[in-house]
Amino acid sequence: MPDSAILLIHCPDRKGIVAAISSFLYDRGANILHADQHQDNDLGLFFMRVEWDLADFALDDAGFRGSFQPLADGFQMEWRLAYSAARPATAIFVSQHQHCLLDLLYRHAIGELRCRIPLIVGNRASARELAGFYGIPFHFVPVDAASKAQAEQAQLALLEQHGIELIVLARYMQVLSPLFVARYRQRIINVHHSFLPAFSGARPYHAAYHRGVKLIGATSHYVTELLDDGPIIEQDVVRVSHRDQVVDLVQKGRDLERMVLSRAVRWHLEHRILHYSGKTVVFD
Amino acid sequence: MPDSAILLIHCPDRKGIVAAISSFLYDRGANILHADQHQDNDLGLFFMRVEWDLADFALDDAGFRGSFQPLADGFQMEWRLAYSAARPATAIFVSQHQHCLLDLLYRHAIGELRCRIPLIVGNRASARELAGFYGIPFHFVPVDAASKAQAEQAQLALLEQHGIELIVLARYMQVLSPLFVARYRQRIINVHHSFLPAFSGARPYHAAYHRGVKLIGATSHYVTELLDDGPIIEQDVVRVSHRDQVVDLVQKGRDLERMVLSRAVRWHLEHRILHYSGKTVVFD
Amino acid sequence: MPDSAILLIHCPDRKGIVAAISSFLYDRGANILHADQHQDNDLGLFFMRVEWDLADFALDDAGFRGSFQPLADGFQMEWRLAYSAARPATAIFVSQHQHCLLDLLYRHAIGELRCRIPLIVGNRASARELAGFYGIPFHFVPVDAASKAQAEQAQLALLEQHGIELIVLARYMQVLSPLFVARYRQRIINVHHSFLPAFSGARPYHAAYHRGVKLIGATSHYVTELLDDGPIIEQDVVRVSHRDQVVDLVQKGRDLERMVLSRAVRWHLEHRILHYSGKTVVFD
Amino acid sequence: MPDSAILLIHCPDRKGIVAAISSFLYDRGANILHADQHQDNDLGLFFMRVEWDLADFALDDAGFRGSFQPLADGFQMEWRLAYSAARPATAIFVSQHQHCLLDLLYRHAIGELRCRIPLIVGNRASARELAGFYGIPFHFVPVDAASKAQAEQAQLALLEQHGIELIVLARYMQVLSPLFVARYRQRIINVHHSFLPAFSGARPYHAAYHRGVKLIGATSHYVTELLDDGPIIEQDVVRVSHRDQVVDLVQKGRDLERMVLSRAVRWHLEHRILHYSGKTVVFD
Repeated sequence: MPDSAILLIHCPDRKGIVAAISSFLYDRGANILHADQHQDNDLGLFFMRVEWDLADFALDDAGFRGSFQPLADGFQMEWRLAYSAARPATAIFVSQHQHCLLDLLYRHAIGELRCRIPLIVGNRASARELAGFYGIPFHFVPVDAASKAQAEQAQLALLEQHGIELIVLARYMQVLSPLFVARYRQRIINVHHSFLPAFSGARPYHAAYHRGVKLIGATSHYVTELLDDGPIIEQDVVRVSHRDQVVDLVQKGRDLERMVLSRAVRWHLEHRILHYSGKTVVFD
Repeated sequence: MPDSAILLIHCPDRKGIVAAISSFLYDRGANILHADQHQDNDLGLFFMRVEWDLADFALDDAGFRGSFQPLADGFQMEWRLAYSAARPATAIFVSQHQHCLLDLLYRHAIGELRCRIPLIVGNRASARELAGFYGIPFHFVPVDAASKAQAEQAQLALLEQHGIELIVLARYMQVLSPLFVARYRQRIINVHHSFLPAFSGARPYHAAYHRGVKLIGATSHYVTELLDDGPIIEQDVVRVSHRDQVVDLVQKGRDLERMVLSRAVRWHLEHRILHYSGKTVVFD
Repeated sequence: MPDSAILLIHCPDRKGIVAAISSFLYDRGANILHADQHQDNDLGLFFMRVEWDLADFALDDAGFRGSFQPLADGFQMEWRLAYSAARPATAIFVSQHQHCLLDLLYRHAIGELRCRIPLIVGNRASARELAGFYGIPFHFVPVDAASKAQAEQAQLALLEQHGIELIVLARYMQVLSPLFVARYRQRIINVHHSFLPAFSGARPYHAAYHRGVKLIGATSHYVTELLDDGPIIEQDVVRVSHRDQVVDLVQKGRDLERMVLSRAVRWHLEHRILHYSGKTVVFD
Repeated sequence: MPDSAILLIHCPDRKGIVAAISSFLYDRGANILHADQHQDNDLGLFFMRVEWDLADFALDDAGFRGSFQPLADGFQMEWRLAYSAARPATAIFVSQHQHCLLDLLYRHAIGELRCRIPLIVGNRASARELAGFYGIPFHFVPVDAASKAQAEQAQLALLEQHGIELIVLARYMQVLSPLFVARYRQRIINVHHSFLPAFSGARPYHAAYHRGVKLIGATSHYVTELLDDGPIIEQDVVRVSHRDQVVDLVQKGRDLERMVLSRAVRWHLEHRILHYSGKTVVFD
C-alpha cells in the first residue's frame, strides 16, 4: 500500500465543495485513491473523506495546512488531516475478560490495526501474561469505589506520559468519570454487550435472557458522559433460541463483542469515522 | 405430507416424562414424525412437542383425550392437541400499510399457512381491492378515539361470528383495549417495526434514525395488555448506514416486517410455539 | 425527492478526473446530491457515479451531451447520463412461479421501482390474473423445444413494440438464445436459485440438499450467452439444517429469490450498476 | 454443569424407537437433560441424540454396554456412548496462518472446547511461540513433495503416541494422503476458505474475487479422500463489495474461518454430529 494522506471534512452543505477540494488536490499533484462523501439533507451538512497517494504530492504537512486553510475557511470547514503511515499511540483498558484484548493484540500483530500499543491498563492483574506474550507493557491499576479518583489520576498520568491518542475499553467494565471522558472526548471507544439502546447498563445478557429476545447484539461506540449513550460506530447480532441459557449468551456474545470492537478500532485508525449530532458517519 | 397430530406439553420437569409419552403413543400405534423437547432448568419446567402420523393411530380425538388425561394428570401437564389437517379461522387486521397483508395472503394462497382466512378487518378502506383479489371478505371498521369502544364491539362481533381462533395484526397501527386482548389472550400476533425492547412505542424508525443505530429490526410477538411487551416470537435485523434516511429505513423495514410476521404466523399455525414467563419456546 | 441527473463514468484511471468532472458540474450550477467512485488498481480503471439536482442546472440533455463530450474524450470515458424522473419501459418474464413477479409488481405499485411495466410475458398462462390485478397487459407466449425460435420472435416483437429497455426474468425458467441475449446485452436481469457459482444449472435446491450445505443462496445477475455466468449483481443466503427437506429449501429460497431480484432491479433502475470484466460495481 | 452421558443413535426408522430408548433410560434412573431426533424420510433413517445426568443413573459404562446392546440389536442401531467429563485427545495441524490456531487455543483455555490438546503439528515452525504460550508441545514436521510420505509417517507416529482421537486442520494447507485419511476417518476436521462447493481447491479468495461474488464464505467439514468434498459441518458468509480487493477478502475471511472451524470442533467434541450419505446431522 502506498503512503497516503487522508482528509476528513465536515461543513455546511453548499455547491462547489467537491470541485474546490478536488481541484486543490489535483493542482498539487495528488493521485486520489479513494473518495467518499455524504450529505445530511435535514441538517444541511456535508461530509467528505478523501485519500490520496503522497508519491507525487507537492506539499508537506505544514505546506498543506498553510495552503488549505483559506479554502477551508471559505466553506467553514472543520477538517482533519492524517497519514496512513502514522501509528497513533493507543492504550487498551481491560478487566478479567480477555477475549477482546486478545483479538486486538492478534490483529495488531498481523498488521490489521494501524497503531502502536505502548500500554495496556488492567483493573485486574490477569491480563499481564497475555500482554507480555505480545511484548506490551502492562499496568495494573486496581479500581474500587474508594480509590476511583486516585486510580483515574494514575491512568491519566500513564496516558499522558505515552502520548496516547486513542483509548480502547476492551470489556473494561468500569464507568469512567466525566472528567476523564472530557480529556479524551471522541477518543475513547467502548464495546457494550447489547444491541443498544436495548439493555443499556449492567448485565445485559441477563436482561436479554429474561426478555426472551431472539437475537443478541453488541455495540461499539464512542464514550460520552452519559452511560452507553455515545455515538454508535458498529453493531452486530447473532441468533439465539430458547435453548440458550445466560451462559450460552455470554459465549455467543464474546464473538460478537470482539468483532464489533475490532471493526470500530480499525475504522477509527483508518480515519473513516466522522461524528455529529450523537451519530457517526463511517466511510467504508 | 401425512395427516398428523401434534401434542404440545408443558409441565414441571421430572424423570420419566418422555418415556411415558412415547410409550403411550407407541402402544396406540403412533408413528412419530418429529419430536422436540426443552427444559428450563432454572424454573424446573419441561416442554415438549411431538407430532405423529395418524395413519395407524388407534385413537380418535375423544379417545385420545380420554386416555391421555390420566397420564397428563400424573405429571401435572398443561397440554394441547392439534391436527395438521385443521385450518383454524384466522382474521387479519390491517391499516393502510399493505405489505404484510399481501405477504400473508400470497403465502396463504400457495399453501404456506395452514389456516382459513374468513375475514380481513381494515381501519382504512384501502385494502379492500387486495382482499377481493384473494377472494377474502373485507370489513371496513373505522376507528378513532371517540369510536374506539364501539369499533372494538363491531370487530369482536365479526370475530365471534366467524369463530376466529387467531388474529394477526398486519401493521394494524391501533392499540387494542385490555378487554379485547383478554378475549384473545395468546391468540393475537403483532409485528412491531423495531428490534424490541429498543424503540417500543410510536415511530420507531424515526427513533432509530436519530439514535444512529447501525442495524434496524422488526419483532413479532403475542399481544398483551402492555404495549410492545408481549412474548417475542421472532426478530430479525438488516444493516443500515449513514446513507439511509428515515424513508430508507421504512423501505428496508417493510421487508423485515413481512418476514418476521409471516414466520410467527406460520409457526403458530404449525403449533410450534409454547409460552411461559413472558417468553416463547419455538420448536423449529 | 428532487429531479436529478445521474452520470455514470468508466475510464482509465489517472489524476484529475474528479476535479474535472466536479468543476464541470459546479460551473454549470449543479448541486451534487451523491457521488461515489471506485478504482480498480489492478486494471487501472476508474468508475464514478455522480447525481445532482437539476433545479439550478444550466444545461438540458442536448446541452450536456454537447459540452461534456470533449471532457469525456480527454479522459477516454465511457459514460451514460440518466434522469431520476425517467421511467424506462421494463418487461417481466415469468413462468408458473409467481413470487418474484408479485414482489416486483407490489414494489412497483408503491413506488420502489423507477420504471414503467408495459407488459408481462408468461410461458404459462397462470400469471394472467395477477398481472390483471396490477393493471398490466399479460402476453402468453408458450415455449417448447420445437417452438422456441418462433416464440422468441414473438417476444422480441413485443419488446420492440413497447420500447423495452430492461427485461427481468422473474423465475422465467427458460434459457434465452444467444441471439436474444445479444439484442439486450446487459439489459436482462435473471435470478438463479443458488449461491453462484455453486449449483449452476438445473435443480439447484436438489443439488444443495444432496450436498448437505448449511446455507442456501440466490443470485441475481445480468444474462450472458453462458448459462448462469453473467456479472453478479446481488447475492444472499439463509441458514438451513438437516431438518430442511427439498420442499423447505424451495420455501426458504422463495424469500431469498424475491429479495435478491428486486434489489438488482431497483439498483439497475437507479443507475447504480457498472459492469466490466464480468463483474459489477454497485454504488449503494 | 452435571456429569452426563450422551448417546448417539443411527438406525432404520420404525415405530417404537423413542419409546424403547426413553423407557430403557428411565428404568435405570436417567434424568434426561436434552434429547433431539431426526428422521430422513427419503432414506427411512432415524437419528437421535440423548443426554442424561449420571447422578442417579444405575449403570456404569460396561453395564450400559451390556444392557443396551440387545435393545440396539433389535433396532439394528449404530450407536456411540460418550461422557461429558471426557476430554478426548485432540491434535491441531497448522501452517504459517495462525488465526484459527489462536482462536482454538483461546477457546480451549477458557473452557469452550471439551478436549485435551497434547500436541500441535506445524509444517512451518512459526506457531511454536504461540503453542508455548498456551503450554502445548509443538512439533515441527516440514513437508514437501519429496518428503511427504515420510512426514506423514512422523505425524502418524505422534498421533498414535498421544492417543489422538480428533485432528483439526487449522489452515494446515496440505492435502493429506488417502492412507492418512483412512486412519482417522470422520475424525479429521478441516476449514476451507470458501462457501463449498463453490471455489474448491487452491486460492479460493482469488477465484471469488475474479468471479465478482457479493458474499464470501468459509466451510468446515470432515476430511475424506476427495479434496474439499467431505460432509459439511458448518458454513458462514460475509458480505463483500467491489471495494474489496483480494487482500480484503483474506482479512474478512480470517474471521469467518475461525468462527466456522471452532463451531465445528466444539460440536464434534460435544457429540452433536452424526454423518451419513456424505452429509451431517448437527444436533444443536
